[in-house]
Amino acid sequence: MRKIADSTVRRLSLYLRFLEEFEGQGIETISSGALAGRGGTTSAQVRKDLSFFGSFGKRGLGYSVPELVQALRQILGLTRHYRVALIGAGKIGSALVQNRGFRRRGFDFVAIFDRDPAKVGQELGGVRVEDVRQLEASLGRNPADIAVLVTPPEEAQSVADRLVHLGIKSILNFAPLQLAVPADVTVKTVNLALELEALAYHLANPT
Amino acid sequence: MRKIADSTVRRLSLYLRFLEEFEGQGIETISSGALAGRGGTTSAQVRKDLSFFGSFGKRGLGYSVPELVQALRQILGLTRHYRVALIGAGKIGSALVQNRGFRRRGFDFVAIFDRDPAKVGQELGGVRVEDVRQLEASLGRNPADIAVLVTPPEEAQSVADRLVHLGIKSILNFAPLQLAVPADVTVKTVNLALELEALAYHLANPT
Repeated sequence: MRKIADSTVRRLSLYLRFLEEFEGQGIETISSGALAGRGGTTSAQVRKDLSFFGSFGKRGLGYSVPELVQALRQILGLTRHYRVALIGAGKIGSALVQNRGFRRRGFDFVAIFDRDPAKVGQELGGVRVEDVRQLEASLGRNPADIAVLVTPPEEAQSVADRLVHLGIKSILNFAPLQLAVPADVTVKTVNLALELEALAYHLANPT
Repeated sequence: MRKIADSTVRRLSLYLRFLEEFEGQGIETISSGALAGRGGTTSAQVRKDLSFFGSFGKRGLGYSVPELVQALRQILGLTRHYRVALIGAGKIGSALVQNRGFRRRGFDFVAIFDRDPAKVGQELGGVRVEDVRQLEASLGRNPADIAVLVTPPEEAQSVADRLVHLGIKSILNFAPLQLAVPADVTVKTVNLALELEALAYHLANPT
């Protein structure tokens, strides 16, 4: 399969969400226009996005909702479960582990690490917090697919290096810095302070 | 001032972070190359980004760190404080309110709303949680600059409509949907499930 832009993957995720809503309402077919309207895009964009992956829908009839849901789940890799390790059991980390939506989507937090001795041994969302020094021992025995990194910025790169060394190919990074990783490792960075600053910029510079 | 792309604003925020680190280390001048290296970009990009806003630095001498810090704070609108209202005092919302980094940056959570009677009246980060039905009364008396929306998706649009009606121009949205707002309102959406799904896509479709 050829390389698909991140922005396309993002829209496919959104389409899937809307389609699941439609499915929940018992709607069986849907036009590209209705899907576009819900996603803030155009029906041409919807058709183009879906055309990357094959031929869906019938001209004049629209898309079969259950078929498209199934196809998008397959495309996005959501027909299986992913083992997720959390590093950093602070407030944001704890909130993520306890999010039921992630689990429903197939993202299972299976390991939690922290360097704070007061947190080690506690349970979060049914998972015992381990000492981050046990990262290699623990993930060596029970590998994770995805690591969620919520450490202070000064520790993030060294933890990321250890995760990469363990063979982890996917990191969701909440630390406010750009991680350096090999080309075969995917990092998504969520920087909440940056989002707030972008809002501040717009308030300071109204157009 | 002409319109600056969001990606530029984002890089300026990152530069500011690095410069503050340099400042903390007592470094007084810095080359565009050093700044670029830290930010995962090129020195040409750094010079271009900064050129939007005036003339900084001297050829061969680099940028004065304190001058550039000051200029970037000004550009980004970070020389003042912003009043932030949180709607949705769940786990993610609570974690945001209690984040010391935001406050340090000048983002002060001054109001918190929830619809859960068990939460109303409790304190979070020194702020009393109010009933979301009091949104208009409370923000009418004490307006907010920025709203952080962490409600369930089915309530997000109606709350956003009320915020817009109250004159709020900046929304940080954590609900997994695209909010419809007038053109003069800026929305930044953080969709954590989408980030995880993008990682799943890359795991399912390794390049």
